[in-house]
Amino acid sequence: MNELLVTKSLGNKRGFVRIVDVSARDGLQSAAPVLSAASRAGWVKALLDAGVDEVEACSFVNPKLLPQMADAAGVLAELGGYEERVWSLVPNLRGLKLAIDAGARNVVCLLSLTEAHSRANLGRDIESVLADLEEVAELGRSAGVNMRLSTSMTWVCPQEGKVPSTRTMGYLRRAREMGFSRLTLCDTYGCASPLHVEELLALVAEEFDPADVGLHLHDTFGVAGANTLVALMQGYRRFEGSIGGLGGCPFAEGAKGNMDTIDLVYLLRSLGYEVGIDMERLKGVAGDCLKLL
Amino acid sequence: MNELLVTKSLGNKRGFVRIVDVSARDGLQSAAPVLSAASRAGWVKALLDAGVDEVEACSFVNPKLLPQMADAAGVLAELGGYEERVWSLVPNLRGLKLAIDAGARNVVCLLSLTEAHSRANLGRDIESVLADLEEVAELGRSAGVNMRLSTSMTWVCPQEGKVPSTRTMGYLRRAREMGFSRLTLCDTYGCASPLHVEELLALVAEEFDPADVGLHLHDTFGVAGANTLVALMQGYRRFEGSIGGLGGCPFAEGAKGNMDTIDLVYLLRSLGYEVGIDMERLKGVAGDCLKLL
Repeated sequence: MNELLVTKSLGNKRGFVRIVDVSARDGLQSAAPVLSAASRAGWVKALLDAGVDEVEACSFVNPKLLPQMADAAGVLAELGGYEERVWSLVPNLRGLKLAIDAGARNVVCLLSLTEAHSRANLGRDIESVLADLEEVAELGRSAGVNMRLSTSMTWVCPQEGKVPSTRTMGYLRRAREMGFSRLTLCDTYGCASPLHVEELLALVAEEFDPADVGLHLHDTFGVAGANTLVALMQGYRRFEGSIGGLGGCPFAEGAKGNMDTIDLVYLLRSLGYEVGIDMERLKGVAGDCLKLL
Repeated sequence: MNELLVTKSLGNKRGFVRIVDVSARDGLQSAAPVLSAASRAGWVKALLDAGVDEVEACSFVNPKLLPQMADAAGVLAELGGYEERVWSLVPNLRGLKLAIDAGARNVVCLLSLTEAHSRANLGRDIESVLADLEEVAELGRSAGVNMRLSTSMTWVCPQEGKVPSTRTMGYLRRAREMGFSRLTLCDTYGCASPLHVEELLALVAEEFDPADVGLHLHDTFGVAGANTLVALMQGYRRFEGSIGGLGGCPFAEGAKGNMDTIDLVYLLRSLGYEVGIDMERLKGVAGDCLKLL
């Protein structure tokens, strides 16, 4: 009989996988409607109550740049009791200060892994971003907040092509040295080959605890499911999705963006993982949220 | 370093994968517009000219039941020169006779692998269908046409749940004895777990040449890419898709149906397989075809 490599690799005791939904931040920041802070907090609560482990809830970005994300402090104020499961994006030191003042316990920073995307998306080259992140991380450490770094264009960049895994490893080590206790590796363009995902994740697992490293896989070209399977085979147990596939990096017309959280939960459960989510309830929440758009 | 199981399993010389597009049959039979035979033949030709290996082009079903499939003979008549790459669905002996009269070289028959779906979709229980298929296969053999059997609900049935792989093996052996030289295993509901896919495909590979066995994987819940990867790891090299994801088994509201041929080609190429398809041309053809709907 042909070897059951996937079955053997996943093992018999599959255990828990943690799900992070990013729709309230990554999704809503690129949607046309501007929802109130109370409405966004309700969105976040509904997802958490359906069993999603953590939610990216808001962004302390300049509201003139992204009016959809205005009043992040107002969103957090509505989320009393959920603080430990809620993450806030902070684009810079000013954002972090605002987040700390608003009582944020968990903050996310961004780093693009290619110069072309860093300049296009963050307006600076990678070293400048890293210098800023040093300051952000120092304040974050002293304030005792949990810090996560999400890396964009981790595998493929539409401008620069395939991103070398060894170069990526250098950036990930620096992020850890700064105090980012968690990393999330993002396939921002949705172009990562499962073989490239496997290569990088094997390298990462040599130096990091996979429990500290999450995956954010886009479904632009339909590869998110295959890449999730590869990551599970490599021992990773935290995945980000977005209800309705909201958000992502819609370069390609008609393309799908983020992996739909429902598809993610479906795949994980079909593989025998526990996710602690009531699927019917999650579908109901997704339907209710998407009606607001 | 963690083992690169996927990379090792696929090997260094990945070679060719054959692509079958089913949009002109499986897709158009459930679309609202009724396209002329000439228009459907143009659809088929455009796909073949873009490099798709084979196309399911028409169905010799009663046009009163499926007016979208009317004049299958007219479709074939327009496809001179492409006969070897074109497949016709034949639902019964009468359909096969019509197909032979129309010059069909390749015919597809259907078998549901669960009683509930067989009764709902084909109106008969599995043994009755198999008895009919005996007659069909006998005529097909004597007429010298190539015969393929596509099995529906190969892994999961919404009524009956998980389909036992050992029972499936029994039906596949009988199909081969009848003279079906090719099999296509369909995940009709889009619910197959990658582990279940791996289990059945390993059993099939013990008794069949994987070159004779194709996969038709639905993307209803986003698992088609992961299941394609598993099938490649098991040595299978023929996959069916449908441009725009047309067709499939739309039980679930808002669900995706068939795997989009473009997603399929994208995944295969990202894994290093050759598919002989000009992707830009295929995207253009898909765009032109879908405009007809």
